[in-house]
Formats: sequence, C-alpha cells, structure tokens
Amino acid sequence: MTPHETPVNSEATTRRSVDLIIFAAHVIPVVPRDVILSDYAIVIDNSRIVALLPRDEAVTCFVGTKEHHLSTHIVTPGLVNLHTHSAMTLLRGLADDKTLCDWLAQDIWPTESAFIGPEFIKIGMTHAVAEMLRCGTTCCNDMYFFSDEVCSVLEETGFRGAVGQIIIEFPGPYGSGPDDYIAKAKPNLEKYAPGCHDLITVTMAPHAPYTVSDKNLQRANALAKQHKARVHIHLHETASECCDSENLNRQSMSCHQSDQKLRPLANLKRMGLLSEHLICAHMTQLTPAEMDDVAMAGAHVAHCPSSNLKLASGIAPVTEMIKRGVNVGIGTDSAASNNSLDMFGEMKLAALLAKAQTLQSSSLPAVEALQMATLNGARALGLQKDIGSIEVGKRADVIAVECDNIEMIPMYNAISHIVYVAGREHVSDVWINGKHLLDNHNLTTIDEVQVKKSVREWAANISAHREQQKSLQ
Amino acid sequence: MTPHETPVNSEATTRRSVDLIIFAAHVIPVVPRDVILSDYAIVIDNSRIVALLPRDEAVTCFVGTKEHHLSTHIVTPGLVNLHTHSAMTLLRGLADDKTLCDWLAQDIWPTESAFIGPEFIKIGMTHAVAEMLRCGTTCCNDMYFFSDEVCSVLEETGFRGAVGQIIIEFPGPYGSGPDDYIAKAKPNLEKYAPGCHDLITVTMAPHAPYTVSDKNLQRANALAKQHKARVHIHLHETASECCDSENLNRQSMSCHQSDQKLRPLANLKRMGLLSEHLICAHMTQLTPAEMDDVAMAGAHVAHCPSSNLKLASGIAPVTEMIKRGVNVGIGTDSAASNNSLDMFGEMKLAALLAKAQTLQSSSLPAVEALQMATLNGARALGLQKDIGSIEVGKRADVIAVECDNIEMIPMYNAISHIVYVAGREHVSDVWINGKHLLDNHNLTTIDEVQVKKSVREWAANISAHREQQKSLQ
Repeated sequence: MTPHETPVNSEATTRRSVDLIIFAAHVIPVVPRDVILSDYAIVIDNSRIVALLPRDEAVTCFVGTKEHHLSTHIVTPGLVNLHTHSAMTLLRGLADDKTLCDWLAQDIWPTESAFIGPEFIKIGMTHAVAEMLRCGTTCCNDMYFFSDEVCSVLEETGFRGAVGQIIIEFPGPYGSGPDDYIAKAKPNLEKYAPGCHDLITVTMAPHAPYTVSDKNLQRANALAKQHKARVHIHLHETASECCDSENLNRQSMSCHQSDQKLRPLANLKRMGLLSEHLICAHMTQLTPAEMDDVAMAGAHVAHCPSSNLKLASGIAPVTEMIKRGVNVGIGTDSAASNNSLDMFGEMKLAALLAKAQTLQSSSLPAVEALQMATLNGARALGLQKDIGSIEVGKRADVIAVECDNIEMIPMYNAISHIVYVAGREHVSDVWINGKHLLDNHNLTTIDEVQVKKSVREWAANISAHREQQKSLQ
Repeated sequence: MTPHETPVNSEATTRRSVDLIIFAAHVIPVVPRDVILSDYAIVIDNSRIVALLPRDEAVTCFVGTKEHHLSTHIVTPGLVNLHTHSAMTLLRGLADDKTLCDWLAQDIWPTESAFIGPEFIKIGMTHAVAEMLRCGTTCCNDMYFFSDEVCSVLEETGFRGAVGQIIIEFPGPYGSGPDDYIAKAKPNLEKYAPGCHDLITVTMAPHAPYTVSDKNLQRANALAKQHKARVHIHLHETASECCDSENLNRQSMSCHQSDQKLRPLANLKRMGLLSEHLICAHMTQLTPAEMDDVAMAGAHVAHCPSSNLKLASGIAPVTEMIKRGVNVGIGTDSAASNNSLDMFGEMKLAALLAKAQTLQSSSLPAVEALQMATLNGARALGLQKDIGSIEVGKRADVIAVECDNIEMIPMYNAISHIVYVAGREHVSDVWINGKHLLDNHNLTTIDEVQVKKSVREWAANISAHREQQKSLQ
C-alpha cells in the first residue's frame, strides 16, 4: 500500500463496488477536446473506465477495492509512442553527431549484427518498457527483430504494444530473408489479431522502401489486409530517399528498391499500400498533393521530431498535414537516435517546431500536441475504441503527472503545463488496463535492479567489442 | 550529513587539509575540450578549485573537511543561463500559443503592471533560483526590474548572477522613466563592480532597440564602459524588428526608436555599442556580414532556442556564427515564454536545431553545446577567469548528474549523455563557490515549502485579477 492509497470501508451497500477509483486534482480526458475536469474521479472496473465524474458523485455512487488519491496531480490518457525500435535502448548514445550513413554503417549495423538475438531483445525490450512506463508512455508501436520475445516482454510487464513483424530484404540474426520473416509473422498475425489479446496487436513492418522490394511490400500489405493489421513503414524520412528514388539513383542507399521512377509514396500508392492501414514514420518530405493523398487515403503519420532533427532529416510539415486532414501521431524513434524514449520531450518539441516552421506562434497549440501524443496515436493503431482518451468504456490506460514541484508551479492551465512545463520525471503513476504498473515512481512488474545489471553487462560487452574492432583496423 | 558524505579521519598529517573533495565517476572539465576524466577528484578550498587529479593521487595528497563521493555521477561545470528574466517564473504558462503581440499586450504587460513590485520580485527570484539550482544552473544573466531585490535574493541563496540594470523608455512600477532607472543603476554599478563581490556582477540592461531611445542606449553604454560592465540587450529577436527598423515603420511596435533607417545592429554599431561588452539576446536574424561584425567586435550572443521557437521568432544561425568566430552562449529566456528555466533542455534543443538548420547531423556536436552552456556563457559575462570550466584556480561552481537511472543507461560517452540523454531531474548536487546549495536534490539555502506557498498565493491573486478583468470587458 503506497502513501496515496487508502483501504476502503464499504459501509454504503448501495454503492457499486469497483476495482479502482482514481481521484485527481485535474483530469484531461482529451475527448472532448480542450477540457480540464477539476476534482474528478475516474472509476475503473475490469480493466475499463466505467465512469468519469466529479469527486462527490463518485464517492456517492462507487466504492473502490482500491482508491488512489492524487491531490496535486494531472491525470491524462497514457501516451502512445507511434514509432520506436524499443530494444535499441541498449545502443543509446552509441554514437552521435555523425552523418546518417556513417552512423549506420560504422556504428549501428555492425553492432546489431554482432549482438542482436533473443536475449538482447528480451533485455532491451524490458529496459525500454521500464523507461517508457517511467516517462508516461502506455503503448508503443514497435518495429524491430525477434517479435516473439517482444510479445513475451509485453505479457510479462503488462505493457501495451503494436508489435512490428519486420520484413527486410536482407538476411540477419533474425532470419534468412523475406520468406523467413514472413513465415515468422504469420502465426503472430493470427494469435494477436484485433480483439484477441488484452495488450498486444501486431503490424506488418516492412522496414523502408529502400530496404524492401516492391514484391515484398505487396506481400506485407496483403497479409496485413487479410488479418486486419496495420502496415508500419519508414517513409519519406529524408530528401535523398525521395529524390534518389524518383531518379532511380542506384548509387544511393536511399533509393527505393522499385524499378519505378517515382517518389516512394507514389510507388506505395501505385501498389495499393496507401490506405487507412498504413502508418508512415517520419514523412519529413511531402508536397501538398502528397499530403492530400495521405489524408484522402486515411493513412497515418508518426512525427518523430527529435530523431528528424538529430539525423538532419528535416522537419515534417505537421501543421499543414493536420490542416489537410492527415492523422498525425508522435513517436520517439529509437533511443539510439533521440537518445530517449521520452514522449513529453517529443510533445513539447512538436509544438515548438511547428511554430518556427509556420512562423506562427499559434500553430500546433498544446491541446493539439497532447491529442497527437494520445488519441491520434491510438487512431493510427486502430485502437481508438480502446485507448487514447479517458472515456467511459475505454481501457484504463492513464497516467498521473505531479504538479507540485518547484519547476511545475504556478499552473494557470493544465493542458499547457503538460506540454510546455512537465517532464518525464513528473510522471508518478501509470495504469494500463487498470493495473498499477508505476506506483509513485516505482515499477511494479519489472525488477529495476536486475534490468540495470543486465543492461550494464550488455553495454560492457558492446564497448569491449567495439574497442577490439577498432584495434583490428 | 547526507548518505554521500563521509566524516574524515585525518590520520595522515602530511596531507593538505582542504574544505571539500568531490570524488566523481566522471568529470567533464570543458577545458581542455572533449575530455572525460574518469575516477577523478576535484579538490576545493576557500571557494576555489585547488586541484583536479585522479582519485588515488587526491587521497594521497589531500584531506577534505568534507568529502563527497559520487560513484555513479558525471560532474560538470555549473550551467550559465545567458539570458533570462528570472522572476517571471510567477507568470509561467500564463498564456501560450498566441502571437507575440497578443501575448504581450493581453497577458504579460497588464499582469506585470498590476503586480510587479519588490515583493513579487523577491518571491519570483527566489522561486527561479530554486528552479535553476534544481536544474543544474549556477549563474544567470538576469534582466528584470527591482534589481536591489534580485541582488538580495542572490546574497541570501548563494546563487551567482549578473544583474541587469534595466533601462526602458517608459514609466512603470519600478520607476518613472530612463533617468530614474539610470539613477537606480549607478550605486549598483559601483557596489558590484568586477571583483567586488563573490557572487554578483551587474550589467546595464537597455531592454531593446524598440523600447529604448538612441540617447539612452548611449548613456547605458557609457555607464557600462565606465564601470567595466556588460551591456545586455534583446537584439534582432524577430524579422519584423530588423525590417521595420530599416524601413522606419513607426506603426510597428518592433521598429527601433532611432531615426536612422538601419537594422538595429547597424545602429548599435554606429553608436559604438557593438563591442566585447555587448551581450545580444536572441539574434535570430543575421546576415553573414552582420555575423562578421559581431565576431570582429568580440560581442556575445545568447541563443534562446525554446523561446525563439515558441514565439515563432525564428532560429538563430548558431553554426554559422560559431564558424565566423562569434562567442555564443545559451539562455532560457523567461519561464513565461519557455516555460522552464531548464538549461539541459536548451542544450539538447540547441544541438538538435543546428543539425536541421544546416542539414548536417555533425553540426553543433554535444561537446560544443556543453561548452556553449558553460564556458561561452562565462566568457560573455566576462567571468571566464572564474567560472565556466573545472580548472585549478576557478571558483568551485560544479554540478553532479546522476547516471544510474533507467533512462540514463547504458552510457557510451559522458559528454553525449549530458547533452542528449540527461534531463534537469538528474542533477543531484550543486556547489557554487564550493558551497553545497543542492544536496542530493534538496535545496540547502531555500525553504522550498515556504517558496511554494508564496508562489501559490501570488498565482491565485493573479488568476483572480485576470478573471475580474475579463468580467469587466
């Protein structure tokens, strides 16, 4: 029992008994938009929100097996990280300030090929879930290797995820090539079909147009449609990807694998991939007509501002996309190119960058940034009936943000505060499916000491290997 | 005595007795550049660093009255916030997502004129110092009103500051106009002349070209030169400031007060203000020739990335400025336009933005960002002999950053980690002049409970006033 929890005397037998009531100073439900509910209660039973009402009414109508009092907190929906490669936390800060090609070729790819395997994924994923929980994220859209291990970690930790079934043209530690990757994807597409699991869904995750052939993009898309899954892909991340594909400049590693002289989005459209099933990560390069295409198709964009800045990829035209009706969520990308899985940092940066890009300080207001990081991410994943807002009937994926710290006071508007003032460190509590996974900053389903020990061991091995490789050169 | 401190048995009489020894897992001295010293000790006596040496040598040569063991920390120089209006913490998040003119005219100015006075400044400044200490800042370049109160708070809290003696063309709660402001500045220019005080220096702070006449800019400059003080001014913050001044568009509130058809920097140069004494905040608009002018004069720039993005002012051309030899530091601006005094956030943002601006991921590497936030700020303030790096002879202004948290591991490079991974929340300890002002996250010279109480009272009054004003409209 934490200091915030109180045992409940159920003297009023007329009150409905429920699993949990969260009483909060402020609740931002996200739907309806731009609303702050003060002195409110979120009533949770059987993993779902059954009522959202003023404190006094909640006390009259319900009694919770557990009741949690957050008198100086804002409660919001859990954040949805719409694009990440979770287990790459083990490569956090492996190399920085290098060109994308050098970074990949000299640092990331050699290290991955030397180290990744089921155990790496297990530790890295657990580490990432620990970080995401501590930072207020309750769902991630993951794309990496060894998805069975990713799913196991989600089960064990109680974290929600859309698990990418990777397809890439090349062999690697995870498999011998596209046929093998697709064979590995099929059982998961069935096992985790929509509605089959409390926490896990899957996506088909063809890595990018420059690493996956047209044929395999189409196979991925067909499988996704057959199993009502999303397709998660890196798209229009850099100018060279677009330009080199349009010119079929095969010298460039960014050129798509197609034989079509087209920008990659146009090529996906040609092949029927551009639909409401598609989640496009990055999209820093878009013409107005392309934005309209994306909007018309109902496809989704994962905006990754830190990663796009850090790798000098550009700034996605978020304000214009939203204006044209595109659903835009937010992602951190991996901790190797960010170097955190901190959705609070991404929300603030998304709101700030849009203002510089449009030269309008009213662009991408706080309320929009918060919606992007919650509801829009849920929509992109096809999970908007279950998560992304605090509404009756939805899963109880909620987070509490402390507002009493020196750097958090005073507070004139709770929504502005979540975006422009709060940091990851102010997240005190996290519930997923009504389960208390972060309890007053403490992880309840992850052995933090053991995770740290394992991470340090992996990092020591990686560092030693890199030193050895250097000495051989 | 904190868990990290140990009493010392001075059995070895040959060892030199000193006030304090900080043993750290890693020390980043900033000078020399790009160096990480592991398992090192910083030896401090009489407020200054007297030795920087490997742990074993320190133990052999010195004994500290206090010894502090930071086995999982990085120690760096304290951060220098090169442009802020500290006491505006009380207006944190008062209004956001509005155009600069509306924000100033509807929110900031009316609230300031109704509320600021000595007590507001005292509470706001104490609050700001508390926040800055918790975030690893040890020195601020402040520009606001009631500088006597600002100095008192610096004295009481032990915080280092360059205190702006404001000059603005208009009367207000602080004084009747420029003559009055200058009269108030004169005693402080003498009292806090360079070398006169352990913590405090002063600057002349003519607010901006659009709020101060040529005559008073020249008076401020003459006074500053006479007293060897800096001149701290907002300059080239927006495109309209430059364009409307050059065109003498008097309809615009951004047009400078001069009768010269010049960009404000050119006008300052004409009047002799452009010198090594000048600290220019913002500078988002600069031609290559202007950058050369600034570099040639030895003037300094305070880059304020969050504020410039949030107010849609633009992005200062930092990489190009540095290439041309301009000394560029980093500032947060006020908590009303940021909305924090978080130099860790600014360092990361400065490094990221430069990459997007130049389309080069190697631009503004971590080592440069850290130098900007420390040594360059110290240089700008003329304090580089005393602060800005961990070197023998300098004041002991140092901070410790925890590296053992889930979101901070693994660590492959400590300098990258400080810029791209660490947040304000990882600052555990802060020393200024060798005094322990933040001790394992606890403020030692500020009554945090009392500050929070006062801040809440002020905010409640401000909110009530704004509601009342709205109801009158």
